[in-house]
Amino acid sequence: LALIRAIRTRASRSALRTKETAGLHLGIGDDCALLRVRSSEEIAVTTDLSIAGRHFHFDWHPPEAVGHRTLARGLSDLAAMGARPVAAFLSVGLPQELMLKAKKGATWFERYLDGFFDLAKSTGTPLAGGDLAQSPLFAADIVLFGAVRRGRALLRSGARPGHLLYVTGSLGGSAAGLIRLAAWAKENRSKFGHAKESKKKGAEAFASVRIPKKLAADLAPHLTPQPRLTVGQVLSRPGLASAAIDISDGLSSDLAHICEESRVAAEIDAALLPLHNAATLEQALHGGEDYELLFTAPPNVRVPRTIAGIPITRIGRILPLRAGRPTITLLTPQGQQPLQPSGWQHFA
Amino acid sequence: LALIRAIRTRASRSALRTKETAGLHLGIGDDCALLRVRSSEEIAVTTDLSIAGRHFHFDWHPPEAVGHRTLARGLSDLAAMGARPVAAFLSVGLPQELMLKAKKGATWFERYLDGFFDLAKSTGTPLAGGDLAQSPLFAADIVLFGAVRRGRALLRSGARPGHLLYVTGSLGGSAAGLIRLAAWAKENRSKFGHAKESKKKGAEAFASVRIPKKLAADLAPHLTPQPRLTVGQVLSRPGLASAAIDISDGLSSDLAHICEESRVAAEIDAALLPLHNAATLEQALHGGEDYELLFTAPPNVRVPRTIAGIPITRIGRILPLRAGRPTITLLTPQGQQPLQPSGWQHFA
Repeated sequence: LALIRAIRTRASRSALRTKETAGLHLGIGDDCALLRVRSSEEIAVTTDLSIAGRHFHFDWHPPEAVGHRTLARGLSDLAAMGARPVAAFLSVGLPQELMLKAKKGATWFERYLDGFFDLAKSTGTPLAGGDLAQSPLFAADIVLFGAVRRGRALLRSGARPGHLLYVTGSLGGSAAGLIRLAAWAKENRSKFGHAKESKKKGAEAFASVRIPKKLAADLAPHLTPQPRLTVGQVLSRPGLASAAIDISDGLSSDLAHICEESRVAAEIDAALLPLHNAATLEQALHGGEDYELLFTAPPNVRVPRTIAGIPITRIGRILPLRAGRPTITLLTPQGQQPLQPSGWQHFA
Repeated sequence: LALIRAIRTRASRSALRTKETAGLHLGIGDDCALLRVRSSEEIAVTTDLSIAGRHFHFDWHPPEAVGHRTLARGLSDLAAMGARPVAAFLSVGLPQELMLKAKKGATWFERYLDGFFDLAKSTGTPLAGGDLAQSPLFAADIVLFGAVRRGRALLRSGARPGHLLYVTGSLGGSAAGLIRLAAWAKENRSKFGHAKESKKKGAEAFASVRIPKKLAADLAPHLTPQPRLTVGQVLSRPGLASAAIDISDGLSSDLAHICEESRVAAEIDAALLPLHNAATLEQALHGGEDYELLFTAPPNVRVPRTIAGIPITRIGRILPLRAGRPTITLLTPQGQQPLQPSGWQHFA
């Protein structure tokens, strides 16, 4: 109860300031939260589950990064629809030891909330409710509500043969960062290990993963991905994008989703892919969690080179679906080859 | 992936039939679901987390009951606001063994979905999305969206001194049922036990809790509580209820929430409480999960004796908050006494 009150205070102090503009009418403290949107708008909803050991590791990820990533996953889905954030709901199953004070400073869960609220604030996303239960396993379910003009939401199903294929930002940085993070964590396990693995007991072990600033900056695409909210909203204006998805599972998998929902095929050109400077082609194709937007536009549309400061790169085109031809073809200097969707399985 | 497809098919077969009337514009299969409500309405949102071992026991609760109760918790919050259901989102962290086939028939998770979709269908609640991840622990987060006329939602904060206090249905039946269920499970442990406790391995143990029909009927208030959706919608009409909450934590705790949000005190009369025929006064006061509605109305309002077939009982009244007087007073034949909120802590 004390924890719920602390979160409530924090929610009203920071993010709820935006409530009038965002459409949140009644936040935490009743049976339901109440949302209002303009009659010209519809509501986009998405939910994402983050589970310890599956979506993050206690002895790899600083708690602030786990909190940031919980919210970023949901916001990225809103971005892919062209929606603006209206409110977030966070349900957490919380092991008791994550609420223990470390010798210096905050508990693991306080640091988790720091990361969560920092991104909530910078994106104008009020926390409007949620649920909290003690649990032997850390699990967080994030629900995001956005508003988008009626009929303007960017769907996966709008791609047509001849449309060109674009991507925002750079690819593979998250997967490359994860590998570097794992290596760093292995080296520093004795210092920062999770209670079970390090044989250290209690809060100190849980709360203590801290990454040097320089390394954290290099790992930003993995630790603190930035959902492309503004880009998505621009793309949803009439006459721009025809379909969109966010790259959460990996380019190959997410492009396959567009192809499936639009009933089309696609080809991408390896030479055109905007690889993150630390990433391999493999990581750009299949590494997930980049949270960039993958979108299509008719060939006569002039797509800007940057939107809201984010570079936009043409990487391929949409083709008709034909029996005997692979759904996705990868063009390389060695010729063309079928590209199997083999998305990010997190730690599986 | 196969499981997600099966759920998607099932969602579109049963509950999504209601989508046009309910306001769900785009369901499972894109980055977000899209909802539309009438411009005269606002949206009520609630989330509830159900965790194995905390909100239910594998060797006590049949999977259908766990599925029913997951959804009932969220629907009951909508009922307490006077909202009609628009869409549900279900996120599940799922241990692999719950997807194993038992010798006869369905997996634990299929039976869970049976219970979930039965209630979804009978209440016209389409499943519009969610998330699914493998997890060592079963955890389900349910998100419910409802629609309610702007400004008409029943809040906890509307009770005023002099208003009368009412409750729907009967109280304590769920707590009494849980005790009987625990006793039955203990007797039948060798037959129905959870894998760990019964030493039986695998799916057979997980999938096999089946309660005799007669007993299941007696335990209905606990196993299959009915959210008071129609009553809530009637109560939200102008000139009826002034405040409402659903009884999830227990009468004493939930009345304390109304008092806190409305800044009032209250007295209830033990002799007036509509005890379930198997329940004690203690269970009616503090046993949770009855999912009845507790509401207030001004004294000049004629509250019907039944609404939608559900009996309505006056149980007390709202008083001004005064220093030195308890927030909640219980009147008994032995005189009056302070009533401490001591709500349901599930299995804690």
